[in-house]
Amino acid sequence: MDNTDPPSPTPDKSAPTMRSAPTIRDVARMAGVSIGTVSKALNAGGRLRQETRDNVVRVAREIGYRPNDLAQSLHRAKSRTIGIISNDSFGRFTFPIVEALEERLAEEGIAVFMCNATDDPARERQHLDQLLGKRVDGLVVTARRADKRVPVGPHAHGLPVIYVFSQADDPQSLSLLPDDEGGAVLAVEHLAAIGRKLVAHITGPEHFEAVRLRKAGYIAGLKAAGLSATDGFYLPGVWSEAWGREAIGRLFDGRKKTPDALFCGNDQIARGAADALRERGLSVPNDVAIVGFDNWEVMALAARPPLTSVDMNLRALGREAGERLLDMIGGKRVRGVWRRPCSLVVRQSTVAEA
Amino acid sequence: MDNTDPPSPTPDKSAPTMRSAPTIRDVARMAGVSIGTVSKALNAGGRLRQETRDNVVRVAREIGYRPNDLAQSLHRAKSRTIGIISNDSFGRFTFPIVEALEERLAEEGIAVFMCNATDDPARERQHLDQLLGKRVDGLVVTARRADKRVPVGPHAHGLPVIYVFSQADDPQSLSLLPDDEGGAVLAVEHLAAIGRKLVAHITGPEHFEAVRLRKAGYIAGLKAAGLSATDGFYLPGVWSEAWGREAIGRLFDGRKKTPDALFCGNDQIARGAADALRERGLSVPNDVAIVGFDNWEVMALAARPPLTSVDMNLRALGREAGERLLDMIGGKRVRGVWRRPCSLVVRQSTVAEA
Repeated sequence: MDNTDPPSPTPDKSAPTMRSAPTIRDVARMAGVSIGTVSKALNAGGRLRQETRDNVVRVAREIGYRPNDLAQSLHRAKSRTIGIISNDSFGRFTFPIVEALEERLAEEGIAVFMCNATDDPARERQHLDQLLGKRVDGLVVTARRADKRVPVGPHAHGLPVIYVFSQADDPQSLSLLPDDEGGAVLAVEHLAAIGRKLVAHITGPEHFEAVRLRKAGYIAGLKAAGLSATDGFYLPGVWSEAWGREAIGRLFDGRKKTPDALFCGNDQIARGAADALRERGLSVPNDVAIVGFDNWEVMALAARPPLTSVDMNLRALGREAGERLLDMIGGKRVRGVWRRPCSLVVRQSTVAEA
Repeated sequence: MDNTDPPSPTPDKSAPTMRSAPTIRDVARMAGVSIGTVSKALNAGGRLRQETRDNVVRVAREIGYRPNDLAQSLHRAKSRTIGIISNDSFGRFTFPIVEALEERLAEEGIAVFMCNATDDPARERQHLDQLLGKRVDGLVVTARRADKRVPVGPHAHGLPVIYVFSQADDPQSLSLLPDDEGGAVLAVEHLAAIGRKLVAHITGPEHFEAVRLRKAGYIAGLKAAGLSATDGFYLPGVWSEAWGREAIGRLFDGRKKTPDALFCGNDQIARGAADALRERGLSVPNDVAIVGFDNWEVMALAARPPLTSVDMNLRALGREAGERLLDMIGGKRVRGVWRRPCSLVVRQSTVAEA
């Protein structure tokens, strides 16, 4: 958003002495337009001739107008609506995020349009046009996986945009992501703390950024705990229980050195691994402790034993996306890629019940 | 929006000859108000004095005005938005419904507000107020379970309301539900068709209407197939894998007559049962065939073997909700409780791979 850029350092251009911070009134007066027009021009929401918009933006810059009061977000939220474009079919990663986001914005009387683009750029574009037509005050983009994507496009120019559980190469926007690497460190730290020495990592496909980051955390966690990586103990594969079971074969069949702990890239892999270990007569956690990832309760709680798992705190991520979107609507400059901490939920797959 | 009202047409005020079906113009003329006001009064979306609304409704009734042209729905969709109030936290039953509904309405350029009420009547009321403030053209209410609920209230008076995977004692609204009983009949028919004679039913808690309906279908299916119900073969419990495992103990421990087939109330129960049978050395499907319910793929496909399951066709239900809401917005009278057929997805838990 042009208007949220820090003041261009050319104030006091000709004369009018302004002691206090310039207001929207000052911009309107100096640009010779109404306050409403200034608001429209700076919010990029309304229909204005391009030259009018450019003139207002120029004047606002010149006098250093910066609507940085958070309370203003609600004045500036003209339509009191925002749009969410999801590429997860409102799926299991998206819904805690959307739920918490909707909850936060409802507190401010802002309603949420849900659009499902199902990874189809044409549908996404169509949704975007529709949302812009509704004059939404901001946009949240979310996805099935946190990998980089193309920005929602020049179409959304000037509108506050937040990517959550998704990220874009867009210097004007904010991406909010879980700290996958930190989450993996938590898992390995916990396994080390309960005395395990030989930690294997069974995970998903390496073309997922999350897989690469969790591997980095696994390596860093081992190092921090004074443990070393073992050849053959890192097994990338797919996100399924069947792969978890298969990987146990690879780790235990005819091998001299077998792990006493597993850090799994998701809970499905972890559950498959737990089943395969039990079927080999090995005890979880006594013989092999297991930590999963996602803390997907339907999976983690149904596993035998229930899984210790890394939680990405998706609800907190959704709520923060709501907060930051309010900031952006209020004119704050909020940009970059922010990673938020995961936490560890300990269950019987690492610590046997007393 | 007042400014979008067409000019009030007040010609031919006295001449009452009406040969063709009365139109909105006729209602406006005879009620002495604008077409916009008639539209508002009949859609209940706008803010009007109660006496104005009552007068319009009375006139419309008297002259037999019934806006039954489907194409009109789009003219009458003033805000081109509808609201969804979910009590499933956008969960796994809700999201295929919402996804398909959103997809259908997006085709007509109608956007969807998502509101999560999490079974809290106060939050639901708040959301409802907000949606009415946004002048939504219609309302969809959905839930985690299909049981009867109180109507969304006098507040939504006159607004088209559809309950989907949810139902209300509201003679003005439509409830769209899966045919649970018919789904259970499909399951039992299939088990009978593959030659099973002794079908047990392990299911969820009886305070769910779905449990009672599926039981009725189980009994009806047995009867239709010439099979009889066996004492102790109906086991209501909870919706979990652990209950599925426990129920296998009850059916097989020290019992002379054991089932050769299971119809399970959901896929989690079915999965638990399959695990417990395998651990007893019994083969699925050779010794015991299993049919689940929900066709929740993450569960049904990960089970060993993958589960045959009854699919409630929730996407079709969502799409139909979209269609019927368009009908209602267009003025069609669409009411009642409609149950839509389930289908059966056959996998290896009933038919071994060739």
